[in-house]
Amino acid sequence: MKISPSHLFSERAKGMKASEIRELLKLTEMPDIISFAGGLPSPAAFPVDAVEKIVAELMEEKGGYVLQYGTTEGVTALRKALLARLRETQGFEASMENIIITAGSQQSLDLVGKVFLDPGDNVIVGAPTYLAATNAFRLFQANMESVPIEENGMDMDYLEEKIRQIERHSKSIKFIYVIPTFQNPMGVSLSVEGRKRLLNIAREHDLLILEDDPYSELRYEGEKLPSIKSMDEDGRVVYMGTISKVLAPGLRIAWVVGEVDIINKMILAKQPTDLCTNTLGQHIAAKYIAEGYIDPHIEKIRKMYLEKRDLMLKALKEKMPEGVTWTNPEGGMFIWLTLPEGMNARSTLEKAITEKVAYVVGDAFFPDGTGKNTLRLNFTNADNEKIDEGIGRLAAVFRREMADKGLENI
Amino acid sequence: MKISPSHLFSERAKGMKASEIRELLKLTEMPDIISFAGGLPSPAAFPVDAVEKIVAELMEEKGGYVLQYGTTEGVTALRKALLARLRETQGFEASMENIIITAGSQQSLDLVGKVFLDPGDNVIVGAPTYLAATNAFRLFQANMESVPIEENGMDMDYLEEKIRQIERHSKSIKFIYVIPTFQNPMGVSLSVEGRKRLLNIAREHDLLILEDDPYSELRYEGEKLPSIKSMDEDGRVVYMGTISKVLAPGLRIAWVVGEVDIINKMILAKQPTDLCTNTLGQHIAAKYIAEGYIDPHIEKIRKMYLEKRDLMLKALKEKMPEGVTWTNPEGGMFIWLTLPEGMNARSTLEKAITEKVAYVVGDAFFPDGTGKNTLRLNFTNADNEKIDEGIGRLAAVFRREMADKGLENI
Repeated sequence: MKISPSHLFSERAKGMKASEIRELLKLTEMPDIISFAGGLPSPAAFPVDAVEKIVAELMEEKGGYVLQYGTTEGVTALRKALLARLRETQGFEASMENIIITAGSQQSLDLVGKVFLDPGDNVIVGAPTYLAATNAFRLFQANMESVPIEENGMDMDYLEEKIRQIERHSKSIKFIYVIPTFQNPMGVSLSVEGRKRLLNIAREHDLLILEDDPYSELRYEGEKLPSIKSMDEDGRVVYMGTISKVLAPGLRIAWVVGEVDIINKMILAKQPTDLCTNTLGQHIAAKYIAEGYIDPHIEKIRKMYLEKRDLMLKALKEKMPEGVTWTNPEGGMFIWLTLPEGMNARSTLEKAITEKVAYVVGDAFFPDGTGKNTLRLNFTNADNEKIDEGIGRLAAVFRREMADKGLENI
Repeated sequence: MKISPSHLFSERAKGMKASEIRELLKLTEMPDIISFAGGLPSPAAFPVDAVEKIVAELMEEKGGYVLQYGTTEGVTALRKALLARLRETQGFEASMENIIITAGSQQSLDLVGKVFLDPGDNVIVGAPTYLAATNAFRLFQANMESVPIEENGMDMDYLEEKIRQIERHSKSIKFIYVIPTFQNPMGVSLSVEGRKRLLNIAREHDLLILEDDPYSELRYEGEKLPSIKSMDEDGRVVYMGTISKVLAPGLRIAWVVGEVDIINKMILAKQPTDLCTNTLGQHIAAKYIAEGYIDPHIEKIRKMYLEKRDLMLKALKEKMPEGVTWTNPEGGMFIWLTLPEGMNARSTLEKAITEKVAYVVGDAFFPDGTGKNTLRLNFTNADNEKIDEGIGRLAAVFRREMADKGLENI
């Protein structure tokens, strides 16, 4: 007789449900499937030779140190290398006590939740926004308030009105979570004016901004946008970066930059969470940045992903039925599709999977469950020769469904 | 003008304080200090050549896979290798759905907390016990109830009485946390009879047992003890293991084995925490176990640590003033010292540090802050030729303090 432990679970655990993205990642392991689902880099984009060389050097030079426990805030060499790089690529100055290394951006979100969120607190997020961010905040029983994302990022008029509305009910807002550049899932970016206005709104209402920036180095065209952190005069921006898209996600290395008081609390929150981030990965990342492997590598993956994006945009244009629209991202990893009103991307997904092609349903990214006719396509993971074929299969599924619903001539 | 974010912190964060062990680890970085403080393996005990060779093979054979995101439950090859090894070394059978890979035992503790602990819940722990475990549980605002640890492990009579006492107040007990073999910080082990009785008590009161087992493979003498999990008939033991002491802590690889319902909740709790454990480290650990590097390596470190333990026991015997007593561990990493009543290990630590030798104060390991005259010595990290010298310095500090307090002739 085995025990049934369910009565012992915490309230938090009783509310836990499997994530959409996770269930979908399982599908991508099916043979023959063309997956545009997971937000995965191309495995061809990982610098395997550099990693092999760096690990050999590390083991020979200081293996006993590299494999030992490290401090909770992270390996000194990596924090130094990152501060120099952030100055150059993101235009802001920070010092060693302003940065903590985390086990991937997902842990950055978890630590932000641990430090700021009590049950019932409000967090403002985009609609749509990164699913695993809202999942992380919800683990702390916080409430998501959403603001529409438009072609130029978050709708600032709506944001102001939303904040006033929440404040009228005297409720506490902890921070505004944004992915300003090549947003997940839409691929759009917040304009410079939008960034300035966001900072002004945050200042006026004394709120923090959580700037999640995994993709800004993956720009394929257009003008570079300044990070919000680089325009932050009063320390209210908490900036999140990661090595996952410019080196490899399997190392689980990311970072948070912010005011000392915040970083110190995050260090205290990380100690009982995992003591320290894996030191081997940190030393690999430090050498990769400090010894100049990173820039030529980013050049290489930009070219690779530009080609993939263009292949997908071309296939969409050639193959999608009229009435289907999509974003035209200047960088990042995602294209966002909108099907005609009345279509349901969940039911077409089931059909798509029988045709051996996958995507993520859009409503998963809306905290309020709207966006039933939207979906996210990843263009960085699939092989080039599969992109055209996969979009063709998807277009056929949508065309049939539109015909069945009498939506083919809208 | 920088903002002051403190009013935005969560209640949880407002209660966070720096950990003793962390502050002490900083001291160990001072030049010339002989540190018996941190629970660190010897850097000479890391298989740096094997890691270099394994990484080279991994990068050449399947670098694109090894550096990619992995599933939340962990790399299949590692889970398989661990199940086979646990059958052999710990005497229990488990299947693939019973195991989750975590980012070190500290994350195992965090996930157990996420899955089981609501504010005000009770957890039963040893007095003394592993400091970072109680810190992890306290992050979930749980209450620690402690039971004395004796020469043969947790006092089972006291445990039964304590449970009855808590139950009389109709309070909920979530689990009993034990480190049955070579306990941290005392180095003692729970006898076979104690293990059986613990299981009976847990069954009678329908409680879970959290068995933390980082050290059992580091046995230097005496009879092997069965894991509690191997005697568990009704699935109430949640077993925690780690690669930190038999390969390297810097990889941050550990595991939890338990009933499917519990592991499934832990997977759901891990997703928003960090998506997955670093895949490079998992693949290194998988090859290290599956290709047979591990057993000869453990043989090597057992010899290395036995020598260090004996050096420390010999130095203690030769140098410590009368009235100081210590445990005689058959394995693990720690010796536990008790100074005469009236001595305070915190004030002697300040003096010890000026003499360039460090330890961890014992009261840090007591949830109720008792144990003022106790301290923990780690014998695995210091170089052999430093052990005698370090113990000599400590003995001189204690002798002087005892003389100052008139305690030299007790």
